[in-house]
Amino acid sequence: MTTPTPAEAMALAIAASARVHGTTSPNPPVGAVVLDASGRLVGTGATQPPGGPHAEVVALAEAGERARGGTAFVTLEPCAHHGRTPPCTDALLTAGVAKVVFANADPNPKAAGGADVLRAAGVEVEHLPTHVEPLRAWLHYARTGRPHVTWKYAATLDGRTAAADGTSRWISSEQSRAEVHALRTTIDAIVVGTGTVRADDPRLTARGTGVTRQPLRVVVGTSDLPPHAHVLDAEAETLHVRTHDPDVVLGELAKRNVVDVLLEGGPTLAGAFARAGRIDRVLAYVAPKLLGDGPTALRDAGVSTITDAVGLVVEQVSMCGPDVRISAVPTPAH
Amino acid sequence: MTTPTPAEAMALAIAASARVHGTTSPNPPVGAVVLDASGRLVGTGATQPPGGPHAEVVALAEAGERARGGTAFVTLEPCAHHGRTPPCTDALLTAGVAKVVFANADPNPKAAGGADVLRAAGVEVEHLPTHVEPLRAWLHYARTGRPHVTWKYAATLDGRTAAADGTSRWISSEQSRAEVHALRTTIDAIVVGTGTVRADDPRLTARGTGVTRQPLRVVVGTSDLPPHAHVLDAEAETLHVRTHDPDVVLGELAKRNVVDVLLEGGPTLAGAFARAGRIDRVLAYVAPKLLGDGPTALRDAGVSTITDAVGLVVEQVSMCGPDVRISAVPTPAH
Ligand SMILES: NC(=O)c1ccc[n+]([C@@H]2O[C@H](COP(=O)([O-])OP(=O)(O)OC[C@H]3O[C@@H](n4cnc5c(N)ncnc54)[C@H](OP(=O)(O)O)[C@@H]3O)[C@@H](O)[C@H]2O)c1
Ligand SMILES: NC(=O)c1ccc[n+]([C@@H]2O[C@H](COP(=O)([O-])OP(=O)(O)OC[C@H]3O[C@@H](n4cnc5c(N)ncnc54)[C@H](OP(=O)(O)O)[C@@H]3O)[C@@H](O)[C@H]2O)c1
Repeated sequence: MTTPTPAEAMALAIAASARVHGTTSPNPPVGAVVLDASGRLVGTGATQPPGGPHAEVVALAEAGERARGGTAFVTLEPCAHHGRTPPCTDALLTAGVAKVVFANADPNPKAAGGADVLRAAGVEVEHLPTHVEPLRAWLHYARTGRPHVTWKYAATLDGRTAAADGTSRWISSEQSRAEVHALRTTIDAIVVGTGTVRADDPRLTARGTGVTRQPLRVVVGTSDLPPHAHVLDAEAETLHVRTHDPDVVLGELAKRNVVDVLLEGGPTLAGAFARAGRIDRVLAYVAPKLLGDGPTALRDAGVSTITDAVGLVVEQVSMCGPDVRISAVPTPAH
Repeated sequence: MTTPTPAEAMALAIAASARVHGTTSPNPPVGAVVLDASGRLVGTGATQPPGGPHAEVVALAEAGERARGGTAFVTLEPCAHHGRTPPCTDALLTAGVAKVVFANADPNPKAAGGADVLRAAGVEVEHLPTHVEPLRAWLHYARTGRPHVTWKYAATLDGRTAAADGTSRWISSEQSRAEVHALRTTIDAIVVGTGTVRADDPRLTARGTGVTRQPLRVVVGTSDLPPHAHVLDAEAETLHVRTHDPDVVLGELAKRNVVDVLLEGGPTLAGAFARAGRIDRVLAYVAPKLLGDGPTALRDAGVSTITDAVGLVVEQVSMCGPDVRISAVPTPAH
């Protein structure tokens, strides 16, 4: 891959962005690579934490003079506005790139228009539509103003989240649990209800090698937290939102620059989010076990008859160790 | 593929057996192909209904003199005993094949030994271990003396088989329902409880183009069937087994030459089979929908704590239209 194809170059830009996923909110985790005029990779970059340089600037800095006449691949349309940093379009024009390829248009009206600015300055601009997983939440946030909610749960093949006696350690496999810990490093906040805190006293931290940052822990519900609950320890910050309204929760989170939310249950709170239409993605870890009794993952979703079921589209199915991992998003109509 | 590789030749034999799957019980649905001495395909065959010729005989008949010095690929070790038809080993020897390749040894002590008989007569014999889906049930039956039970159900991603008001048409997609109808043509009996008959009045027939044969309908439970129930119509034969014991059901079915059973619910009967350790395969059609309320697929499986969960191994995950189809079998320890 001395001269990557456009798809390969974009994949490298996405990989660069994945490495900073979880460290940039409220800014998007963008990735960029720069190829020189003869198509060789000369720079790679990703968005730095808020206040730091954007992806294009990092990649162009590495490329230096070799960027002149070259091509920049960016996962998001370059911004054209002065925020905390100068517009990326300026940096691209100064560096003298001949072409810019971007994977997603910027839905944010304030930042958009980067493609037009570049074109007006004589740069060739191409839109190469590509799914960029690290941008999923931010694109949703930019379009709706609301943080993106992934409802994650683990259940048996017959839909139970615990046995009849309440035991649930461990429903899902070691591999699934490790994946969830890795996922926690990419999101901004983990949300549970007071019921889960009382029942499980979870720590809600990301654990594993190389974890340097903890998401905000959020507990939803009107009752007080047990004074010695793990969520009140010093391992991470915790916010207790005394409400039953998911939109109040999301509003509080948006104020705190939270873009990407992991809803980790339980069934009551998940039901409230489902009822409010505030589940943007379902991530189910299905363990190949049968229990035949015990609690289920979702309660009171506001559905009483089959035609009112919350409709989803499966976007990915994969194995996570012995478990089946299903990622699904609401049907477009929803 | 003028001269198929061994794996291709075996795949052709499996494909031939799939076409007769469901028409041969209590005999195994076997497939065979014959290659001539230069490796060209000269004959294909599959087991005919009970009393008819076995796969090898059909394939050899098509091959005729071209079989001499050639190779036969068979999904099951050729039988060496006189049943209703003469031993297949005789047919292979008479035809003068130089080599026989088989995918599964015959676990049936009465029929086994075919490989040894052929070797003793100077034929080269090779075991090429291959999963042969159409033989799954029969191999289980030959090993245990019990019909093989596939528990099939359709549920939402959150584990519901109907909404709170009892509506369930249609939980799963058209594609999944079509696949189940196709599956019904390959099995010998469909089993439900009296509860399902009362609640749904199902027809339990295989429907779709090219359906020529109906499985035996079996209703389990001590109560009488509603006199106008569909299962009592003339579309297929129906057996009512007035018991709560899965082994009594399986014993009755074995007497009727049933090898391959599709357990279609509901949750009470499925629980009884799970409790008895009589589920040999779980086939779940998971629809990407959320209900948050309603009945579940399995009840009273005899499990009260997580460490006693029925352990399974996922053997296949695929999409069936919009639904996720999961096939799982009990963990070897079970
Ligand atoms: N398998 C999994 O993936 C998983 C994940 C998490 C939890 N769980 C299990 O879930 C169980 C706890 O269930 P849960 O339902 O009690 O937990 P929960 O949903 O986390 O908490 C329920 C509490 O949330 C608050 N709440 C927030 N919005 C609400 C609304 N709109 N309506 C009603 N209440 C609202 C209420 O608190 P207030 O009463 O304080 O107002 C309610 O008591 C535990 O056994 C845990 O193990 C399983
Ligand atoms: N989504 C799906 O894939 C699916 C498939 C099938 C059914 N279902 C649903 O399941 C519901 C019916 O549930 P169900 O549980 O009543 O149906 P069921 O399991 O088919 O039938 C229950 C009956 O089975 C008999 N039975 C046999 N062995 C038993 C045992 N060991 N212990 C207790 N009873 C035993 C009893 O009949 P007696 O009282 O006569 O002795 C019992 O009442 C319906 O709503 C139907 O729609 C869903």
